[in-house]
Amino acid sequence: MTGTTQDDYTDRYARRVRGMTTSEIRALFAVASRPEVVSLAGGSPYIAALPLDAVGEMLGDLAARQGATSLQYGIGQGTIELRERICEVMTLSGINNASPDDVVVTVGGQQALDLLARLFLDPGDVVLAEGPTYVGALGVFQAAQAQVRHVAMDDDGLIPAALEEAIAATAREGRQAKFLYTIPTFQNPAGVTLSEERREQVLDICERAGLLVVEDDPYGMLSFEGDAPLPLRARRKEGVFYCSTFSKTFAPGLRVGWILAPHAVREKLVMMSEANVLCPSAFAQGAVTQYLTTMPWREQIKVYREIYRERRDALLGALHDLMPAGTTWTRPSGGLFVWTTLPDGLDSKAMMPRAIAARVAYVPGTGFYADGTGRGNMRLNFSFSAPDRLREGVRRLSGVMEQELAMRAVFGGAGLQPGHQRRRGPAAADAPGPDLA
Amino acid sequence: MTGTTQDDYTDRYARRVRGMTTSEIRALFAVASRPEVVSLAGGSPYIAALPLDAVGEMLGDLAARQGATSLQYGIGQGTIELRERICEVMTLSGINNASPDDVVVTVGGQQALDLLARLFLDPGDVVLAEGPTYVGALGVFQAAQAQVRHVAMDDDGLIPAALEEAIAATAREGRQAKFLYTIPTFQNPAGVTLSEERREQVLDICERAGLLVVEDDPYGMLSFEGDAPLPLRARRKEGVFYCSTFSKTFAPGLRVGWILAPHAVREKLVMMSEANVLCPSAFAQGAVTQYLTTMPWREQIKVYREIYRERRDALLGALHDLMPAGTTWTRPSGGLFVWTTLPDGLDSKAMMPRAIAARVAYVPGTGFYADGTGRGNMRLNFSFSAPDRLREGVRRLSGVMEQELAMRAVFGGAGLQPGHQRRRGPAAADAPGPDLA
Repeated sequence: MTGTTQDDYTDRYARRVRGMTTSEIRALFAVASRPEVVSLAGGSPYIAALPLDAVGEMLGDLAARQGATSLQYGIGQGTIELRERICEVMTLSGINNASPDDVVVTVGGQQALDLLARLFLDPGDVVLAEGPTYVGALGVFQAAQAQVRHVAMDDDGLIPAALEEAIAATAREGRQAKFLYTIPTFQNPAGVTLSEERREQVLDICERAGLLVVEDDPYGMLSFEGDAPLPLRARRKEGVFYCSTFSKTFAPGLRVGWILAPHAVREKLVMMSEANVLCPSAFAQGAVTQYLTTMPWREQIKVYREIYRERRDALLGALHDLMPAGTTWTRPSGGLFVWTTLPDGLDSKAMMPRAIAARVAYVPGTGFYADGTGRGNMRLNFSFSAPDRLREGVRRLSGVMEQELAMRAVFGGAGLQPGHQRRRGPAAADAPGPDLA
Repeated sequence: MTGTTQDDYTDRYARRVRGMTTSEIRALFAVASRPEVVSLAGGSPYIAALPLDAVGEMLGDLAARQGATSLQYGIGQGTIELRERICEVMTLSGINNASPDDVVVTVGGQQALDLLARLFLDPGDVVLAEGPTYVGALGVFQAAQAQVRHVAMDDDGLIPAALEEAIAATAREGRQAKFLYTIPTFQNPAGVTLSEERREQVLDICERAGLLVVEDDPYGMLSFEGDAPLPLRARRKEGVFYCSTFSKTFAPGLRVGWILAPHAVREKLVMMSEANVLCPSAFAQGAVTQYLTTMPWREQIKVYREIYRERRDALLGALHDLMPAGTTWTRPSGGLFVWTTLPDGLDSKAMMPRAIAARVAYVPGTGFYADGTGRGNMRLNFSFSAPDRLREGVRRLSGVMEQELAMRAVFGGAGLQPGHQRRRGPAAADAPGPDLA
């Protein structure tokens, strides 16, 4: 006996836990990491492109020469050395007025979102977010017992009129959303980017409505076609909370991200973070600081860009050549993801077991909505697999889709979703594990 | 202009933020890290005792040879390799029936406590905890908007009759505490250990009352006089959540801790952790796994024990030789801390600025209570400073105390606490930063 599977603790849980259930989808994803499966499901950078020997030497030195500090506790806000480097990194994105004093180092971009949620959200509070949006943000908002209201996008990102309508609809209930959560650049999962013109419109709308903006920008530096538009935070200093991470420009295994916050709020965030993790890892912070100080990190970002551009082209080419008629997809100019809309009648969630059996994995669209929609969509990742693997993955996927469509032509829609039930649980129940987020 | 100091966001914060204010004490602690100050305030292990060259080589290899996984995302629960090693580590403490499947790897021991709080605590819920208790746990409970009720200790740890009375008092209000938070072994800050006999009594009381137990055991392996008593979790499998960390047996700068939880609860904890930090650092986990696999970690713990025993003896000797009459203190048989009770009339919080001016730092007792008591106490750390520095610190501290007592003899109590106000804020407001927790 190593454990009981019966949950004797159910009636003791906090309210935020109710409805949190693991889904069958998660079990399927466990299979997706097998080498024979082409995974289009993850959000993993291509770490093999790093100069691992040089990184190893750097990290060895960090322990051997600076171990007395790099292996010790640090302060909650993060080291001043790293916060200074972070301000330099942000200038590359066009954020030129950031003070290291207003930066809070976090355990990856995820903790940044969680700290902001803890700072602002009471149970029942409303958050506006793009639909679809980052699965990990939905997990944060669910844990905060907040209500997510999705705002529609098109190829130019968030639609300003839809944002105004969402604000108005909330106001008609006598409520006000606490903030807009947005990934304006190379959005996860949609792969679209908020246009220059709309950036100003969105900021104006939020300012008029007194709506704070949480700008999540993990991918902004991974542009394939010139520089990305200026971040929202580069356009407005007040009211915008800027979050980013070194997970996509260096390495996710160190878990180092940050928030750039208005000064008064920064102190609260530090106290929140201390209550959560005491302090971010001194070693991980030292690793990033050394990397930014001693290694050609700007060139490495260019390496990532080149690799991902080639892979995006391979994925888009394969989709064009192999996908069944009626399938559409976005054409990202940066980042890691393509968002696909299936032909009428196909269900990305119901199709998952058959895709896994055909040795290809993706994330069903349902994971990216708080309201159960997204069955007609799937997210495809192109950063992790080589071009020929991507093409093979699309070939397998289109085979599964053709089969589904053929069955549908013969039997109608009914036979396609055995045991299928309309989902009732919260969105996170459909979410993949973190290696796929 | 790099930031505004005015807090325009006050009316937007979540309820949990209200009352969270930084205290003047925190500013003083910033000074405490200067080399001319003897800090008895921290909780830092003596990292210089690690074989840093060998650790550096190990970490360099981890990046160079296993970088494709150790620098990548991982799963939310933590790697199976580390969870298996953790189960081996726990056997040393007498926990022999743990399954790696029931272990959740966390960002240090702090995240372990925070995850349990998020799992169980709704606003207003009651938690029982020793008085005094770990400052970081108070921060967690405050962020969870819980009410902490302290249970008294003596030299044998938590007093069973006091625990029964606290349970009864809560029941008289028609309420039930969600759990007992306890550090039974080498308690922080009190330095006392729950006796063998009382361990069974406390467990029986909790079982009868249907009270869960959160057992925090960061120090159990740092015993100076034979092995510590068996952990509570080694005595009862159900109803006990066991938390520990590698911060005191290896290095806090990696931020690796864990929870051993009943199986059903473990799944919820993993989902909570994913919403918080996505996954623990793969690199930090790899570092601990390699350390436990390839390096003499049991011998290193013995090294730490020897060093800390010598330092404890030095601190106790200095207290005996130098402290003013009327001062008393605990005599820890392991861990990092001595808890001191000041002569009548001295106020550890009010005395802090003068102590810092005399180049010695400690943590006032108020940081370890949720209810504002503790002015008559201070916590002294003996793990970080060498024996002669400890003695010098006590010499400076006793000088400050003698001065205070002399002033008190001349002017009475009134002049001692200029501008002093009874504190009203929550406990965390008096808490030191994480480097001192």
